[in-house]
Parts: sequence; structure tokens; C-alpha cells
Amino acid sequence: MPDTIAPPAPAPLRQVVAASPNIAIVGATGAVGIELLRCLEARGFPLGRLRLLASPRSAGRTLPFRGEELPVEALGEESFAGIDIALFSAGSGVSKRHAAAAVAAGAVVVDNSSAFRMDPDVPLVVPEVNGDTLASHRGIVANPNCVAAIATVALAPLHRAHPIRRLTAATYQAASGAGAAAMEELRESTAAYLRGEDYAPRVLPHPYAFNLFSHNAEMDPESGHNGEELKVVAETRRILDAAALPIGITCIRVPVLRAHAMALTVEFDAVVSPAEARALLAAAPGLRLVDDLAANHFPMPSEASGQDDVLVGRVRRDLGDPSGRTLALFVAGDQLLKGAALNAVQIAELLLRR
Amino acid sequence: MPDTIAPPAPAPLRQVVAASPNIAIVGATGAVGIELLRCLEARGFPLGRLRLLASPRSAGRTLPFRGEELPVEALGEESFAGIDIALFSAGSGVSKRHAAAAVAAGAVVVDNSSAFRMDPDVPLVVPEVNGDTLASHRGIVANPNCVAAIATVALAPLHRAHPIRRLTAATYQAASGAGAAAMEELRESTAAYLRGEDYAPRVLPHPYAFNLFSHNAEMDPESGHNGEELKVVAETRRILDAAALPIGITCIRVPVLRAHAMALTVEFDAVVSPAEARALLAAAPGLRLVDDLAANHFPMPSEASGQDDVLVGRVRRDLGDPSGRTLALFVAGDQLLKGAALNAVQIAELLLRR
Repeated sequence: MPDTIAPPAPAPLRQVVAASPNIAIVGATGAVGIELLRCLEARGFPLGRLRLLASPRSAGRTLPFRGEELPVEALGEESFAGIDIALFSAGSGVSKRHAAAAVAAGAVVVDNSSAFRMDPDVPLVVPEVNGDTLASHRGIVANPNCVAAIATVALAPLHRAHPIRRLTAATYQAASGAGAAAMEELRESTAAYLRGEDYAPRVLPHPYAFNLFSHNAEMDPESGHNGEELKVVAETRRILDAAALPIGITCIRVPVLRAHAMALTVEFDAVVSPAEARALLAAAPGLRLVDDLAANHFPMPSEASGQDDVLVGRVRRDLGDPSGRTLALFVAGDQLLKGAALNAVQIAELLLRR
Repeated sequence: MPDTIAPPAPAPLRQVVAASPNIAIVGATGAVGIELLRCLEARGFPLGRLRLLASPRSAGRTLPFRGEELPVEALGEESFAGIDIALFSAGSGVSKRHAAAAVAAGAVVVDNSSAFRMDPDVPLVVPEVNGDTLASHRGIVANPNCVAAIATVALAPLHRAHPIRRLTAATYQAASGAGAAAMEELRESTAAYLRGEDYAPRVLPHPYAFNLFSHNAEMDPESGHNGEELKVVAETRRILDAAALPIGITCIRVPVLRAHAMALTVEFDAVVSPAEARALLAAAPGLRLVDDLAANHFPMPSEASGQDDVLVGRVRRDLGDPSGRTLALFVAGDQLLKGAALNAVQIAELLLRR
């Protein structure tokens, strides 16, 4: 559900940042923080200074970057002096407390939390899909929920050609969405299961070894949906610029480490052939068509993990809609990359190019 | 897809079997075979003789039953002499080759394979749903596909009150559906992954450790669906007696050992409230409502495993249908029990009661 907190007062619009900007990563030691470092390094991001920020608990650690060990500092009021772009990934609370200070210090904030995603003054950006909305930022850019980011990369090329009028989604979400500790809990509880030992969950509310469960986000009693499902609905509509799009969704946590998958049933306003959809998807940026019927080879988390591209396949006419206007797809994307760190770094790259 | 093989010629209709019938289990050493033995024992099935049949490879082994070790015999032409009910669970080929001999010997065959499921002369039975169709059998009764059996237990009470006019399903299917060897492959490949070792899949076509993939049944190039999906569509329609029901489906194999789960989006011909649906589900046989929003506690494979009841929950209005005629559910059921062995033994019990 949209956060209702007011955005920081408009800062001097420093839209065009330095050619070699100084970057801060807030939450550098988390699962997404580590991937932010890796993305900046792998993509040869033109960096000035890189400042790693985290909770006082993590301060004093070092993290490797371009062959050096960079110190982790405690996030504080003075952390953003001289910073051009601040990549926040330390949860909604930290973003709400510290984003204004970063903007006031002249930085553009790219925020991976849900704090500002539904704020009309904050663009919610997937570069391949709605990179043009970045221009409207007033100091903060929101990085979407992982499911919304991955889904919209696959849906946008279809939606542009033929407006989508209904979407049904069932997700298969990896441990990484709940952080590094959840990934470790999946590994540890599974090892314990295989040894025949009991394991008491500490991070997630249910046993995870060879098990799956409804997403652990808080339930909204009125709609009967969990917070993750409501985020995906609201953010997908916003990213696709389809404010009234009806979206039915079930978010499920599965025992997979770091790539989300989803079964999408997509109704268009006209008959769309699977062949046309495949051609649109194959030509779209950030996507890889994996749709080999003869080899029974379709998108899988094991092949999406560590990949920048979102994988899409199983493109077929939905047997549930005799009108022919509905297609079914299966999608897999790295939750930590396109679902989080990569998309944030791509936004930062777009800020540089402006 | 329907098998087109002709059913065996009508045998003398031995519909009412002996009070303590002699039972044969074909495929006794398989994952379902072992559960058939357990179900007969746990339910105090009134048995005369119990004959365990398998391939020559397994002959000579023994299996425990009611404190004894029963010998496993090789399946042959004379295996069914004196047998009242033959429970077949050794694949479609074995059923096609041997069911006629069992019927000719006077047995009623309860067949767990897909061989006869779409044969109009063979009832396809889920006792809680369409037990009345059993009367039409001519020697063979078909036990449904595991997804169809589990789904229809949850759908039938709703469908009876308000006809379903469209169904969208995404499955989360366990290893057990591919047999005991696939369950072992899931355990072994996961252990290897955790040790950091490579593992070459032998049973399933893709890596299974912390991974998921589109169901490994053969693809139908024309529809773009796999054989599992087409079976579920055809069988669900037949069990619900809804021949034209549009069903869109995605079948996915997840790293879970023995319980299937599924996200169901169910459109009715009228507005149905979640409260009414919950009441119908709570009162229906073979189902347990697990729908605790406050505790975020819904159906999970870990709790469905080893249970006779199918678990159903997450009953809510689908956000994808503003008309209010669509509900969403999440279901989990033991693939080896309600999805296979238990349903077959329930059919045998129904044969006794007739």
C-alpha cells in the first residue's frame, strides 16, 4: 500500500550529476548492497569516490571493490557530504529517516525500499520500461519491488503493442527477497532436514526446507492480500502507466535462493498470437526468450541467477480464454539483480547520461 | 490427452465385491505402491488376501504390512486369479497390457495411470466429488492425475453452489509425482549443492536443487502446453462434469518432496463472497480450511504431507476481476495420498460399500 509520508522538500535540482560521480551505498553489507558493489564493478561504472554506509554494527568491516578493501562506515547525518548519487537499500525505515538528508546534501537518492514508491513526486523507474519518467525526479528516484521490476520488463513490450486489460500472476519467490539471513536459513534448514535434524526458523515464519508458503509480508485483512501482493499490483500499474489495470496475484515463497519466477496470464484488448508475442519479447531490451519446446527448456531460477537479463518463455495461448485474447508466459529473473541492485545501478547510469 | 486405446470387453459386472476382498497391488514397490500398503493398513481395510506385484526386478523383495513381511511377486498372466480388486500403479504401459487380464479374472481394476482416464466407459472418480459415477464402471475405474484430484476436492463444493465458468491454475508440484527416484534425486542433488559439488541429473531433465522448472511431461507443440497441463484440464472438466469449462494452467515442478500446491483463480457465474466460500469449504469432506490471516498461516506442503485432507486457504476476492465474481484460493495436498494412493483406496472402499 502506498506510503503516505511526505517527500522531502524539493532540493536544488541536481539532475545532471558529475561525469564521475561520488556514490554512497546505504546498506552496503546486505544482500542487495553486496550486489550493488558487484554491479558497479562489473559494469565499469565511472566512479569518483565510493562510500559504503551501514548500521553501526557493521561499521569497521571492509568490502572488496576493484581489488581494494573499502571500509564500511556508520550511516550518520554527515554521511552524504559531496555525494552525487546515494543508493539506498537498508529498508523503508532507514530511507524515510535519511533520504531527506542525502537530498539536502545535493545527492540524488535511488531508493530500493518501498518508502517512496507510490509518491506521485517520486518516479518509480525500470529503465527499459519507463526510463523517460526519470526526468521528473525531485531528488529521489524509487527502485521497484523485485516482482514488479521483473514482471514489467516482460510485460512492457507486449503492453506497448497491445494494451493489457487484465493480468493474473502467481509467483515463485526466492529467499533473497527476505535478505541474506533468509538465504542462509534456507541453506541451513535444508542441511538440517537432510541430516534428519530439527531446525527452528529464526528469519521466516515457517519451515523452509523443501517447503513453500504464502509470502510472509503482513496481511491486509480487508482485501485478504499480503503487503507484497498489494505492492506488486500498485507498482506494476504505475510502471506500466496503466492506473486501472486489474491484477490478480498470489505471492508464494519457494525454496530457491535468488531468482524469482512467475506464471503470468495476460489478457489483451485484441487477439495476439504467440508468434507475435515471441517476436516482441525477443526484440525487447533486458529480456531473453527461453522457449524451446522440443528440449522442454524454459525459464528457470538456476539459469536466471547471476544474469542481468530476465528470462521469458512458455509463450502460449491461455486455454482459459476461448476468445484468444489471453496469453500465458513464464518468467524468471534474478531477484538481487534486475529485482534490486542492477535496476538501481541502471537508474544511476541513466542519471549520468542525462 | 485422452488415450484412444479401446477398453477391455465388458466383463461380468462384479460390482459388489466380497466383504473381505482379495487385493492385488501392481507396482507395489513404487512410491505410490508403498503408500497404497500404508493406506490399507492405516484405514483398517477389510482385507482377505493381499498380493504384491511388481516387475521381475523387484520380485523376491518383501514389504512390511500389519507386522508381517509380504513377498513381492513378478506380475504375470496368472497374477489375478481370485483377486477382487486390483490396484494398478505401475504406469500407463503396464495398465494397458495387464488391466484386461485382471478384469477377465473377475477383478475390478482401480488404475492410477492415465491409460483409461478419458475413456467414456471408465469412470474417473474422486469419491468426495463424483463417487456416484462409480456405478457405471465395467471393470475398470480410473484414479485421476494428482493435480486434478487435489484441485477438484477444493473446487467441487464451490462449483456445486455456484457453477464455475473459468479457472486459472498455477501449480507448485512436488518431486513425488515423478516417482521415488525423483524424490531421491531432489535429496541427493540438494546435498551435493550444499557441499559445493556438481550433480548430474539422472531422473529429471533439469537441476533440481533450489531450482524449479516447467513440468517435465512431453510438450504438445500445437497448444504449447505440456502433457501434465492437458491432463489436468481434461480430467478436471470430467470430474466436475463441466465438459466445456475453460481452464488456463501452468504446471511447475518445485523442490518439494511430496505435496503439491496450487494457486487457483476461480470465476463463478455470480458474485460469491469469500465468507460464503469459506463456509462451503469448511463443511466439505476431504478438505481442511487453513486460512489464518492474523498468523499468516495458510496451506503449505510441509503441513499437507502425510495428511489425508487437502488444505485450502487464502480465500479472497481476486483483484483481477472488478465484477466480484472471481475468488482466489491456495491449496496443498499430499501428492502420494489424495493425489494417488489414498484416492485409490477410497475408491476400493466405495466398491465394498456398494
